[in-house]
Amino acid sequence: MQWKKEITTRYSETGQDKIIHHSSYIVYLEVARIDFLKNVGFDINEMEKNNIFCPVVDLSIKYIKPLFSLDNIEVLAEMRRYSKLRFEFNYKIIRKGTLISTAKTLHCFIDENFKIIPLPQDLLQHMSQ
Amino acid sequence: MQWKKEITTRYSETGQDKIIHHSSYIVYLEVARIDFLKNVGFDINEMEKNNIFCPVVDLSIKYIKPLFSLDNIEVLAEMRRYSKLRFEFNYKIIRKGTLISTAKTLHCFIDENFKIIPLPQDLLQHMSQ
Amino acid sequence: MQWKKEITTRYSETGQDKIIHHSSYIVYLEVARIDFLKNVGFDINEMEKNNIFCPVVDLSIKYIKPLFSLDNIEVLAEMRRYSKLRFEFNYKIIRKGTLISTAKTLHCFIDENFKIIPLPQDLLQHMSQ
Amino acid sequence: MQWKKEITTRYSETGQDKIIHHSSYIVYLEVARIDFLKNVGFDINEMEKNNIFCPVVDLSIKYIKPLFSLDNIEVLAEMRRYSKLRFEFNYKIIRKGTLISTAKTLHCFIDENFKIIPLPQDLLQHMSQ
Repeated sequence: MQWKKEITTRYSETGQDKIIHHSSYIVYLEVARIDFLKNVGFDINEMEKNNIFCPVVDLSIKYIKPLFSLDNIEVLAEMRRYSKLRFEFNYKIIRKGTLISTAKTLHCFIDENFKIIPLPQDLLQHMSQ
Repeated sequence: MQWKKEITTRYSETGQDKIIHHSSYIVYLEVARIDFLKNVGFDINEMEKNNIFCPVVDLSIKYIKPLFSLDNIEVLAEMRRYSKLRFEFNYKIIRKGTLISTAKTLHCFIDENFKIIPLPQDLLQHMSQ
Repeated sequence: MQWKKEITTRYSETGQDKIIHHSSYIVYLEVARIDFLKNVGFDINEMEKNNIFCPVVDLSIKYIKPLFSLDNIEVLAEMRRYSKLRFEFNYKIIRKGTLISTAKTLHCFIDENFKIIPLPQDLLQHMSQ
Repeated sequence: MQWKKEITTRYSETGQDKIIHHSSYIVYLEVARIDFLKNVGFDINEMEKNNIFCPVVDLSIKYIKPLFSLDNIEVLAEMRRYSKLRFEFNYKIIRKGTLISTAKTLHCFIDENFKIIPLPQDLLQHMSQ
């Protein structure tokens, strides 16, 4: 399953080099990831109220082309099991058919004491092979 | 009592117009305010662990001159009682003796249910007349 | 003329007090303002390419109720002439019919040397009385 | 040569999970990198005025331990040649002797038309072997 989230870049996310700052891409990835998870029944607000957290353990991103102020982009996200207790998201950022960035984030679930907890069974079915 | 907090503006806080984005000034004010409060015994982390929160109720700011990437600024902050349950901070942002911005924030204390609680007696003594 | 911009708050805009940080409201105002201006023919990217800039000179905001992660909000914006060379925006942030915040920003137009330039005639017709 | 930049995390950089948002680490890396480069004669503001830009091409980061509001951290940065036209920075984020995060960013130099330009000779001498 691939999730598509449309985002318009914000003026405030540009820098003096006139392109979107590279740290904002990280936020776009999260917006798409949280939207994906909510859509399959894992609302981050509900989870955190129940003391289940889903931190980013590892992140890598390639910046292929620059983004500009008010660009309309699509963030494509896919989820994959990575190990017994970890899963990953793979992303593509696309602007009008052009690949702007690829990225990967690695996650686990933890409780309020930062102790790792098992992956929810209901989530596994939404992971790509 | 006037508090002085030195901050260096960050590259990531600029925009494509090559000046520091106006929303970052709001963060600078908070950095100075939190530093002031910590210095007089009101560490925000400790307060929030005890379910005491200090929201901004009202904010106004004048942008007099632009700030640029890597500018060294001073944020001057003073605290004043505003009413029975509210107090305010007044700020000046200065760069090399030049006034860049003036601002004011209005605050109260609330508990975890957003219920207003009295101003701590220990805090009153640090407020300017 | 009143402009309505729908925004979903982002997880990354929350703070440890579990509400949206007050500096993010400033960004929401700008998103609505830039969208308004683009819609009436004043695309900020085009203007800035022509060395016309529209800084915030003054800003005031009331925080009436807190916003939370992933809230769907409407930012309502209206533009008014303020003086010969200045104009203002008035905003309301609404969540499901509830007033969350009111705000006002004051603006002028400047060139690349920070020199004030006249208000464009074409913009005046979109200003409320 | 290893560069050390001290930073205090900001309250505004926390999220509702009460830890510093992972996108803020990216900003900390940049603060250290820009400080390093300025210290060896490559002030980013001067470079960009001369239409020389230094984008992030690739970034990877491991989040080992969480950071909290108002933590005092050190960002250690080292620069290494990566290829004929590219160089990398390696980082460690440390809090009171504890390793919080490791990261790597890959860079090149480009002109205002996004065309890659050679690495400055003067910069090579500051790169670690």
